[in-house]
Amino acid sequence: MTPTEKCISGTIIILLIIADTLYSIADNRKTILVTGGGGYIGSHTVVELLNRNYSVVVIDNLSNCYARNPSEKPESLKRVEDLTGRGVVFYDVDIRNTAALEKLFQIHSIDAVIHFAALKSVSESVEKPADYYENNVAGTNNLLQVMKKHKVYCIIYSSSATVYGEPEFLPLTERHPTGQKLTNPYGRSKYFTEEILKDITATNSEWRVILLRYFNPVGAHPSGSIGEDPFDIPNNLMPYISQVAVGRRSKLNIFGSDYPTKDGTGVRDFIHISDLAVGHLRALKKIFSNKFKGWKVYNLGTGKGYSVLDMVKAFERASGRRINYEFTKRRPGDISAVYADASLAKRELNWKAEKGIDEMCEDTWNWQRRNPNGYR
Amino acid sequence: MTPTEKCISGTIIILLIIADTLYSIADNRKTILVTGGGGYIGSHTVVELLNRNYSVVVIDNLSNCYARNPSEKPESLKRVEDLTGRGVVFYDVDIRNTAALEKLFQIHSIDAVIHFAALKSVSESVEKPADYYENNVAGTNNLLQVMKKHKVYCIIYSSSATVYGEPEFLPLTERHPTGQKLTNPYGRSKYFTEEILKDITATNSEWRVILLRYFNPVGAHPSGSIGEDPFDIPNNLMPYISQVAVGRRSKLNIFGSDYPTKDGTGVRDFIHISDLAVGHLRALKKIFSNKFKGWKVYNLGTGKGYSVLDMVKAFERASGRRINYEFTKRRPGDISAVYADASLAKRELNWKAEKGIDEMCEDTWNWQRRNPNGYR
Repeated sequence: MTPTEKCISGTIIILLIIADTLYSIADNRKTILVTGGGGYIGSHTVVELLNRNYSVVVIDNLSNCYARNPSEKPESLKRVEDLTGRGVVFYDVDIRNTAALEKLFQIHSIDAVIHFAALKSVSESVEKPADYYENNVAGTNNLLQVMKKHKVYCIIYSSSATVYGEPEFLPLTERHPTGQKLTNPYGRSKYFTEEILKDITATNSEWRVILLRYFNPVGAHPSGSIGEDPFDIPNNLMPYISQVAVGRRSKLNIFGSDYPTKDGTGVRDFIHISDLAVGHLRALKKIFSNKFKGWKVYNLGTGKGYSVLDMVKAFERASGRRINYEFTKRRPGDISAVYADASLAKRELNWKAEKGIDEMCEDTWNWQRRNPNGYR
Repeated sequence: MTPTEKCISGTIIILLIIADTLYSIADNRKTILVTGGGGYIGSHTVVELLNRNYSVVVIDNLSNCYARNPSEKPESLKRVEDLTGRGVVFYDVDIRNTAALEKLFQIHSIDAVIHFAALKSVSESVEKPADYYENNVAGTNNLLQVMKKHKVYCIIYSSSATVYGEPEFLPLTERHPTGQKLTNPYGRSKYFTEEILKDITATNSEWRVILLRYFNPVGAHPSGSIGEDPFDIPNNLMPYISQVAVGRRSKLNIFGSDYPTKDGTGVRDFIHISDLAVGHLRALKKIFSNKFKGWKVYNLGTGKGYSVLDMVKAFERASGRRINYEFTKRRPGDISAVYADASLAKRELNWKAEKGIDEMCEDTWNWQRRNPNGYR
């Protein structure tokens, strides 16, 4: 680089930093309501929101996050406050409770909602579909009605790659059909809610909706003070692996070793939770931009597929511990390989996942090692 | 026919009549909860239920049927009582009202639910999707939860051919894909509810669910004392035609004259409301049969497609009046031709539509002429 080029590139960097700071300052008056903010993805997103100077109001019904006492601020959010040095307003409120929501929208002037609150276990959804439709679908519909009444028209919705069903092609772009061959009520509840959110944008041009389709969130905040803390036997791979590593469970069951993948185990697009959380910040920036209208959908994934065995090996490297595992038969409804085309989020949100599987495993292990029993 | 053949055939007929009577007697202790029983399809079905000696409990929120005073029995049901000489228990209850439903299931020992209650206007659903998802989807989910709590596991659901979306082939069989390319929230609310009902059957083998996909119900009870009575400007063809005939409206707008059909107007499978009502009786018989389990779906249509102009002409014949009409452009989301393959209902329910378009028009006209302002 010539001195002139260095000067130009230096100036550009400085201008970018100034622009970014101005953006933060401009946005620090904005108040974001985070539903389900006590949970795994919610709490990590609240960290990023607070670091960006947003005011944050969290509601959570505490059905899937630990609080020492009923109605108390969940442990995860207390740790978020310690981590960021900022406060979070918390209410023990269920999204189905219209009266409580109404009150909250009266007290706080909300600029946008990031809506995580949902039941999320595939297997439980098969046993209790009505609970899933009530919480996830009817609950969201209720939230939308209250938002409309209070003229809050911005919402970022926590959707899932599960809405794609069995992939017709890979990597999955946002144009892949959705809602076909879904194998469980959880997936249907996410799909139905997406459709409801799209429909609502047709009623009033003020609505701004972003649907974020998550692939497989794993990892934990690098500090190790917050992470994933399932109440029961984990449904997902990473918390299971880490509980085996820390000695809470004796071995990992790997469902299926005969998938048409490189090593026979299922392939997923694992994404670090901090990358995913930052995706929400970028979506907020987008949704508040002048040009935005109607609805948009973005995949949040890395674009890379790793097998279950890849993850086991990476976790062994990260933790220095051996993970006992056993192959068992495929679970009905499981798909052999799922991974994202994440290029739309790169183009339109200026977002891409930065962290690889080693960091995912290191941060998971760091969290698990420091908190062998989660938040308890 | 030889005398022996005559004797055999006579004996068979007598045996059939005896079997049918025994069936009625056996079933006359059964109590059917009819949701939305004050409406068009509901009230005609209640007539058939009462004629078959079922005990009938109706709930309706009176949002789309006329009652002289709030909470009073709707006019349609008073006429049903006059027609049949039997009483109907009525409650002004909304399916979203859990407490009221609970009470009702405590008071009455319900054997099966026929679930009509729903919002049904395509155009309104585009303007107010949240109302449609709340009433139709969340409302049904709520009803199912209360049913489960009170161990009532039989439900016949009022679905629609709209769940098929744009036909990939005609006539539409029950195997035609559903949920694809649905163009409005009303259709999605019917599709989502079908999926919820299917999911619920996987939770407990006691559930018995029949989904009835209606084509285009028209006509009125032959007595002319009950019929279709839209509150506002009719959304459907037949009440519109008949209001033009009776002078309540000046002319009929025909949406689209350039469809790829025999005369350029849309083709639908019109079915007489009395035939449709009887379809529910056959579905009840099926759902109470020992072998029945899980869920089944049946088209209720005639299997014949008639164009809008066919219906206009038939109505002119039936009423002896000229129907003024004007062609206007297609409505977005309207489909050129839709008609049923109704053979599954024939095979499995022993049901088929008996009445043709002349009877549909004569009975509509009879109702309209006697009640130019509906029930008011």
